[in-house]
Amino acid sequence: MHIAIAGAGLVGAGWTIVFARAGETVKLYDASEVSRARVRDDIRGRLGDLKNYDLVDDVEAIMKRIEVCDSLAEAVDGAKYVQESVPERVPLKQDISRELSALLGNKTVVGSSTSGIPASAFTEDLSNRGRFLVAHPVNPPYLVPVVEVAPAPWTDPDAVEVAMSVMTAVGQSPILVRREIEGFVLNRLQGVLLREAWALFEEGYASAEDIDKTVREGLGLRWSFIGPFETIDLNAPAGVREYAEVLGPLYHSIDASRSDPQPWSSVLIEKVEAERREYVSSEELEERRNWRDRRLMALAAHKKKQET
Amino acid sequence: MHIAIAGAGLVGAGWTIVFARAGETVKLYDASEVSRARVRDDIRGRLGDLKNYDLVDDVEAIMKRIEVCDSLAEAVDGAKYVQESVPERVPLKQDISRELSALLGNKTVVGSSTSGIPASAFTEDLSNRGRFLVAHPVNPPYLVPVVEVAPAPWTDPDAVEVAMSVMTAVGQSPILVRREIEGFVLNRLQGVLLREAWALFEEGYASAEDIDKTVREGLGLRWSFIGPFETIDLNAPAGVREYAEVLGPLYHSIDASRSDPQPWSSVLIEKVEAERREYVSSEELEERRNWRDRRLMALAAHKKKQET
Repeated sequence: MHIAIAGAGLVGAGWTIVFARAGETVKLYDASEVSRARVRDDIRGRLGDLKNYDLVDDVEAIMKRIEVCDSLAEAVDGAKYVQESVPERVPLKQDISRELSALLGNKTVVGSSTSGIPASAFTEDLSNRGRFLVAHPVNPPYLVPVVEVAPAPWTDPDAVEVAMSVMTAVGQSPILVRREIEGFVLNRLQGVLLREAWALFEEGYASAEDIDKTVREGLGLRWSFIGPFETIDLNAPAGVREYAEVLGPLYHSIDASRSDPQPWSSVLIEKVEAERREYVSSEELEERRNWRDRRLMALAAHKKKQET
Repeated sequence: MHIAIAGAGLVGAGWTIVFARAGETVKLYDASEVSRARVRDDIRGRLGDLKNYDLVDDVEAIMKRIEVCDSLAEAVDGAKYVQESVPERVPLKQDISRELSALLGNKTVVGSSTSGIPASAFTEDLSNRGRFLVAHPVNPPYLVPVVEVAPAPWTDPDAVEVAMSVMTAVGQSPILVRREIEGFVLNRLQGVLLREAWALFEEGYASAEDIDKTVREGLGLRWSFIGPFETIDLNAPAGVREYAEVLGPLYHSIDASRSDPQPWSSVLIEKVEAERREYVSSEELEERRNWRDRRLMALAAHKKKQET
């Protein structure tokens, strides 16, 4: 049984690589003929980049497992799992879910790539709504393995299990978000760190560049292979209980100093924008994104080597 | 002119490696004769580990630049910079600062390794208090380059410059914390992320392991080579302004949902402790710390290769 991908944009193409790389047959559909026409070349190009970092072996063998279909029905028929990756707007998510609902086998599960819309916002009225959930990737999913599996209140427990095991089987790292919550887990963690970063910048404690440096030359090193709980668990001789008892009051005091969250003002945004443009001009942003992607590939290759 | 290290524990030994590796002569003193007697072997052992990861070339050449002194005066006499690394208690910091104050050359600067005590708490009454500041490392500093340089209100601006340039010259990544603030920058950023992590765990949204996975297989990958501001700057076509305008309201809404920070309760701490011990038992913690240190070394070697 194959994997179906609904939506062949940036996200759908990334997912196609994840599944096909792992040996799955992938059937891909996009409502746009232009997208359908160019997606194979896009994927082949990205696989070539991955090959340069020894992250895939045989590009053409992977390409052979990828079929672009002319209808959603053709892509979904007989699929064990559907990754829905249409653009991030509620009406579009509702429309595609309704279409998928009519085409779905009894045991098929649909994971939506949405980064911010809860599954309950676009599946409530579907007769088989228990088969739908969120499976939120980070871009590009073939380099950043975490996937947030977030069921709606009515998602079948076995559909959650299917999504988790499909993701694990293809080498992703699924996490279970047990109940719906704004931002799921990943963007909430990112959000609170950003909030403190913006506040420290706004109040003049440090430049944006120095705050970035604190993360990329400090906190981010351990966090690239152990998470925040394990970090503190290993940072006290007797483990996390000792750490929490000793340092809990300091952290609570820091939290209490930020009990009145303010939105990022336009004046503040302009200041951050101005500082960032000193380091990377608008014209250089695209090149810097390519550099970031190469660094992510090199890091993925490094981690793979460490973990095998 | 040489570097002096006051305190030859874990932190002082780590600093000694940073400076001696970079070609500086280091004079080291500790009030404890036991510490003085064993610190060279400790350092030699750690340099051997670094050599295994190609992070240093010639262990004995580095050892030759390290001198353990029998008095603080001998270590400090003629030093251009003193890294004070005595244990983290205010009276100890006050005592050592008073001693150093009496021994200090006019142009010498003293950086304290304290992770949480502001320089103003232990330097106020010194006649040459303008020469003192905080230079907070992460452990071990020879693998994690960030150093938070945090002056007291009365620290001389040129002392700040000396500290920043000494750190840069030996390959560390100093950041300037312009005014004193609890937790400086690094622990504030860590603190807010931990706070959200503990809250998500407490409310049952995700397991501690899944929250860790979200960071180590997700957020932490980019953060190991670009900071939070650059991450979002590269995540919208037109840069950080566009990102902030589109996603600012989501993040503000997440922040607003956490406006009543609670301390980590003992019940909560026990739950986290229990989950962590399922993954790493108390007996395995030490072995896991050694694994972490090897991973940090491998990551440092990886980053060095990428950046040269």
